[in-house]
Amino acid sequence: MAVGTAHAQAHPNIALIKYWGNRDERLRLPANSSLSFNLSGLQTTTQVTWIEDKSGDSLILNGREARTDELSRVIRHLDMLRSHLGIRGYAHVESGNNFPTGTGIASSASAFAALTAAATSAAGLHLDERTLTTLARLGSGSAARSIPAGFVEWHASDAHEDSYAESIAPADHWTLIDVIAIVSTSHKAVGSTAGHASAATSDLQNARVAGAERRLTQCRSAVLTRDFAALAEVVEEDSNLMHAVMMTSRPPLFYWLPATLAIMAAVRRWRTEGLQVCYTLDAGPNIHCICGPEAAAEVRNRLQSISGVVDIRSAPPGGGVTIERLA
Amino acid sequence: MAVGTAHAQAHPNIALIKYWGNRDERLRLPANSSLSFNLSGLQTTTQVTWIEDKSGDSLILNGREARTDELSRVIRHLDMLRSHLGIRGYAHVESGNNFPTGTGIASSASAFAALTAAATSAAGLHLDERTLTTLARLGSGSAARSIPAGFVEWHASDAHEDSYAESIAPADHWTLIDVIAIVSTSHKAVGSTAGHASAATSDLQNARVAGAERRLTQCRSAVLTRDFAALAEVVEEDSNLMHAVMMTSRPPLFYWLPATLAIMAAVRRWRTEGLQVCYTLDAGPNIHCICGPEAAAEVRNRLQSISGVVDIRSAPPGGGVTIERLA
Repeated sequence: MAVGTAHAQAHPNIALIKYWGNRDERLRLPANSSLSFNLSGLQTTTQVTWIEDKSGDSLILNGREARTDELSRVIRHLDMLRSHLGIRGYAHVESGNNFPTGTGIASSASAFAALTAAATSAAGLHLDERTLTTLARLGSGSAARSIPAGFVEWHASDAHEDSYAESIAPADHWTLIDVIAIVSTSHKAVGSTAGHASAATSDLQNARVAGAERRLTQCRSAVLTRDFAALAEVVEEDSNLMHAVMMTSRPPLFYWLPATLAIMAAVRRWRTEGLQVCYTLDAGPNIHCICGPEAAAEVRNRLQSISGVVDIRSAPPGGGVTIERLA
Repeated sequence: MAVGTAHAQAHPNIALIKYWGNRDERLRLPANSSLSFNLSGLQTTTQVTWIEDKSGDSLILNGREARTDELSRVIRHLDMLRSHLGIRGYAHVESGNNFPTGTGIASSASAFAALTAAATSAAGLHLDERTLTTLARLGSGSAARSIPAGFVEWHASDAHEDSYAESIAPADHWTLIDVIAIVSTSHKAVGSTAGHASAATSDLQNARVAGAERRLTQCRSAVLTRDFAALAEVVEEDSNLMHAVMMTSRPPLFYWLPATLAIMAAVRRWRTEGLQVCYTLDAGPNIHCICGPEAAAEVRNRLQSISGVVDIRSAPPGGGVTIERLA
């Protein structure tokens, strides 16, 4: 019987090489390996208490009682932890983000990273990082990447234990800044889980996946050598490929808004003018402008004057999940 | 020695299944078969006179002396006609469009269809339609589709003579209307010839081509049975696939403007509301809204209220090239 309380914090992450589509939907084994960095300053904070005498799990989200759909996804994850780790009892979960959910900043990544870390610690378990990443992955694929620190690679594999994430460089290796242009704060129409399931309906998904290892190798090398020009090329290529798959799925998924397209064009133009900036987009309309250390302030200024930009956030690379056992 | 004058008129065409990329660049043998209809009301009118005592070919375009690049492309085509057909002498060509060039309405298609027809007729040749389509193709691939009438299929093949176009239904078979929302009148940054050459640099082109025969079959059947719902699905899918290839080419080609994206989203929404409309885009930002006979007026009205739309043209299916020998 697990009784105890723990507290965890995790950052969302931005993928430079994207995760889109699974080879196994249930286990969230990704079609291809991916690479990201954590976003410092943005975080999910989650506290889990395992309790004996309760009739079920409960969830407080951003200070309010969670909706049924939110609660069910958390219960599914807790069920999986109970069955994998032999934890008994029910959990009371309180979780909050300091950034808006469902708008292209991957809230499910930080949420399931923090939940997995807090729930296992509250149960008195001391799991190694690799195991934590595989368990977080079962809740939300990209959550695996929010467990390790800094720049993180998540390995594709056919086996649950081998599809884990690990840091390839610490947060302070390269002070890139993710300047996020928020063009919509409404919750996206098609969530990532449904999106991943639709990837295989695109005639182009296999071709995207076939080239992913090459792109990952280029991107890893660009990160390790701090080569911004090489990074920019492969990051935009990979983002364009993912959105090409999305918009050719059946039914098609169009995540871009007109302002998204305008900013993408502007970023490409700014780069030809010498500014160290490139874009990448997740399953949403907001644009992540990945900037070299010197370029972030200028990019922020220029974004402010583009019509349709409703908010701008900046985040340098961040650390991994932090865990504190309270009782 | 060819001496004589002839006059030809041809319409541009809008592809429902797209031509993008060649298996042979020089012969413009397309990677995949395509299907289009001619656009009535929009036309290129070309007059060719073969003259003995002249030092070279000359070209008047829309009432002005042609630029060197325009003249060279016409000379290349005339050289090809001279060598294929044994025509001798030089040509004086006068050509004009009643629609703006280089803005997503395929002016090179109608231009090379009319030029081929006028030049061969002026030389006293009476070529069959199939031969005319293969010769027009050598000037501009999609020009093959502007020779036959109505709804036209252009066959992919490894052999010059077998990559020809033919009508699959006359213009009055189905009164679809192409309502063209013009969002930019500036000449496109990357012309189609360079674009076709770049198609193979996309990791996605092979996958697009692999599915083209299936889409062509679906589209042909939708046209022949006048099944708008089936047409809409495959036409948008095929256009999205071509633009997916374009934006993942190296370097990427982005033809869409913010207004383009807004109209694409609007068209998909209007269709779910019951309006018979779908979109297709060529290598440019303007949107061709293919409408069922009853929907065109309403689509036109709705487009007028969308910001960024600078002009609207409507065209029902048109006939094939017309030729008049004057002397």
